[in-house]
Amino acid sequence: MKRRKVLGWAGASAAGVAAAGAGALALARHDQNPASATTSEADAAGAIPFYGERQAGIVTAAQDRLHFCAFDVITDDKAALVDMLQNWTAAGARMTQGLDAGTFGAVGGSLEAPPDDTGEALGLPASGLTLTIGFGPTLFRDVRGKDRFGIAARRPAALADLPKFPRDTLEDAISGGDIGVQACAHDPQVAVHAIRNLARLGMGIVSVRWSQLGFGRTSSTSRSQATPRNLFGFKDGTRNLKSEDTGLLDEHLWVQPGDGPDWMTGGSYLVTRKIRMLVETWDRSPLAEQQMIIGRDKGEGAPLTGKLEHDEPDFAAQDGEGEPVIAVDSHLRLAHPDQNGGARLLRRGYNFVDGSDGLGRLNAGLFFMAYQRNAHKQFVPVQNSLAKQDTLNEYIRHVSSGLFACPPGMLAADDYWGRALFA
Amino acid sequence: MKRRKVLGWAGASAAGVAAAGAGALALARHDQNPASATTSEADAAGAIPFYGERQAGIVTAAQDRLHFCAFDVITDDKAALVDMLQNWTAAGARMTQGLDAGTFGAVGGSLEAPPDDTGEALGLPASGLTLTIGFGPTLFRDVRGKDRFGIAARRPAALADLPKFPRDTLEDAISGGDIGVQACAHDPQVAVHAIRNLARLGMGIVSVRWSQLGFGRTSSTSRSQATPRNLFGFKDGTRNLKSEDTGLLDEHLWVQPGDGPDWMTGGSYLVTRKIRMLVETWDRSPLAEQQMIIGRDKGEGAPLTGKLEHDEPDFAAQDGEGEPVIAVDSHLRLAHPDQNGGARLLRRGYNFVDGSDGLGRLNAGLFFMAYQRNAHKQFVPVQNSLAKQDTLNEYIRHVSSGLFACPPGMLAADDYWGRALFA
Repeated sequence: MKRRKVLGWAGASAAGVAAAGAGALALARHDQNPASATTSEADAAGAIPFYGERQAGIVTAAQDRLHFCAFDVITDDKAALVDMLQNWTAAGARMTQGLDAGTFGAVGGSLEAPPDDTGEALGLPASGLTLTIGFGPTLFRDVRGKDRFGIAARRPAALADLPKFPRDTLEDAISGGDIGVQACAHDPQVAVHAIRNLARLGMGIVSVRWSQLGFGRTSSTSRSQATPRNLFGFKDGTRNLKSEDTGLLDEHLWVQPGDGPDWMTGGSYLVTRKIRMLVETWDRSPLAEQQMIIGRDKGEGAPLTGKLEHDEPDFAAQDGEGEPVIAVDSHLRLAHPDQNGGARLLRRGYNFVDGSDGLGRLNAGLFFMAYQRNAHKQFVPVQNSLAKQDTLNEYIRHVSSGLFACPPGMLAADDYWGRALFA
Repeated sequence: MKRRKVLGWAGASAAGVAAAGAGALALARHDQNPASATTSEADAAGAIPFYGERQAGIVTAAQDRLHFCAFDVITDDKAALVDMLQNWTAAGARMTQGLDAGTFGAVGGSLEAPPDDTGEALGLPASGLTLTIGFGPTLFRDVRGKDRFGIAARRPAALADLPKFPRDTLEDAISGGDIGVQACAHDPQVAVHAIRNLARLGMGIVSVRWSQLGFGRTSSTSRSQATPRNLFGFKDGTRNLKSEDTGLLDEHLWVQPGDGPDWMTGGSYLVTRKIRMLVETWDRSPLAEQQMIIGRDKGEGAPLTGKLEHDEPDFAAQDGEGEPVIAVDSHLRLAHPDQNGGARLLRRGYNFVDGSDGLGRLNAGLFFMAYQRNAHKQFVPVQNSLAKQDTLNEYIRHVSSGLFACPPGMLAADDYWGRALFA
């Protein structure tokens, strides 16, 4: 448990001789101590590999806590941005393995310099931390239409801005962003520490546009996980894509060769939506109405035509009065792949409570995150259908939206986030 | 793990015959299954007794997660308020034992009625949940000077409004409150569920004035716990009062007979302060400066005159140039009991990150909570001293403040929160 600290001091001693490059050190730790990909609660201390064919944090069994941060790039200097991305990569490789952000660490450096780690995770294990990066549409052409970094031609068609959906009440200040970083961990202090250190390393290059904490993952990404509940009290993400669905993942999750520019092949597109839930109104609704709106029973989470959570819904079934048992405007029906040309998503959302709304109510809801091969063919049609017809709309408001192109993983320590895009 | 659900359905069946009172049921569960007071991570599923001489959640070994909520009472009807407090007590007795908020539960009631639990904690264990209630100055005489509930004469002198401190930048909308409820648990979903169900039960009687989520407890309240770190990366609360300090607790924590009105004897006063930390500025400070400001070293947390965290600081020690080793304006010196007439506190704060501040920075800091026998003799002089001289002030802003009179515990299931105050 004292790993960070011990290594911090060791690093300090070694520094007098020859400071190892951060990337090299991280790789060494990685080699010595092959990290386990298991993320069960029993293995909460475990480290998840940072390097790999895919970015970690997508099919990784969903951790319990989230800190998501969207950054604005505040420089037009491409070299400075690339330098920061290299520094971020080195720090990410270290922090995900339970190390301090920098070689010297929180307490091992010179007394006359700011520490190269902020220290609040000293003594805490890796806690299943993953860091997943994505690039937003405005990185390729900013709001003034300027191609600051000469990469406009590399913008994938799939990274076109999301359309405005019916009923959207988006707040610009908490939407969008040039770069998005998803930090997931079993310990919120570890996730916060990671984002905070990236922000620190990005000083002068990026600024925090918005950030969101989440708890109680609202989806499972592995068959080993039980389906969790959202703040409406219902199981959420029963039909989620799972890491075990390898064939489906190529079809629905991972960008395939020929889909667009090569730098995104093997990556995935992330849609974020902050969905405020009017829980006080929901809580006054009868159980039957709640179940009718969702299309499932609240306890087991079974379709109203079935008995068990994973039973297939029977959309043709009628009740004694000839009405569909699963209502035509129920969430289950409208979001179901059969009603959306087979579109499926890998959801990875979290519940949130951000204090109160100033009107006597909790500011609570779902921070929806979904990964997919092409948001315009998957999220967009589903959301259009939901936004137009879903009876759940009476109880929710979409207040923030984001779209990020998340490249594939890195295989070697000399690679860095965004290399194939910027090189 | 399925306890809630099983009991929910059992309750539903039993309801056809004769619904047991919520209080009685909770007491029965309590008797059958004596809850452990241990709150180690290994026992994260454990339930902490709701009834006892003291309210749980004060000397209880600090859990890892917080949801604090301050409510405004929006009625002048005393009977309605008392009725709500009785309902809250019954729900609190159940939820702290891992049960649904109401007898029927989230899914066991009539389909035609709103459920008497919101459901998002279905399947989750008690998770060390404690609920601690306190009454604010405005409950006794509201902002218009009105004694709505005929209890102004019962207001303790110790519940006088806190003075305005130098440098305070308080926001009224997130300060004060008629009633404060602290929900602590090992799982944020369980803490959020508890507050949300109290808000639901209080509909029309109270409204949410402000609420605050916290993670990474910043104090230990038991010698069995390691001292955690705040977002400045330093260990926080090294000298905190601990549950094992029984003699000191009577002197510094628990209201004694003769201190004021009887209804508060055995209780404690809670001060809350939301302290925004300007972490970006802090992160640019050299390690030596950070340590000088705090008065301790960052790694071990030892006073700058010592080697180990719990070494006594030597305030007289001088360096080679005749300067005090522990600076006169260091946080350690200014907050130390020896500099404050022996005043001590039982701190129970949490770190927070509330998104971003709209200026490109994380909105991060410490939600400070401290329990004490008399805030005007303990917190107030310490804070006056800190606000005037502490070099840490350059890096922090106090943006919210609250004071709550937390009565003693309840010994029997027919008691309720506030009975001795309102009866």
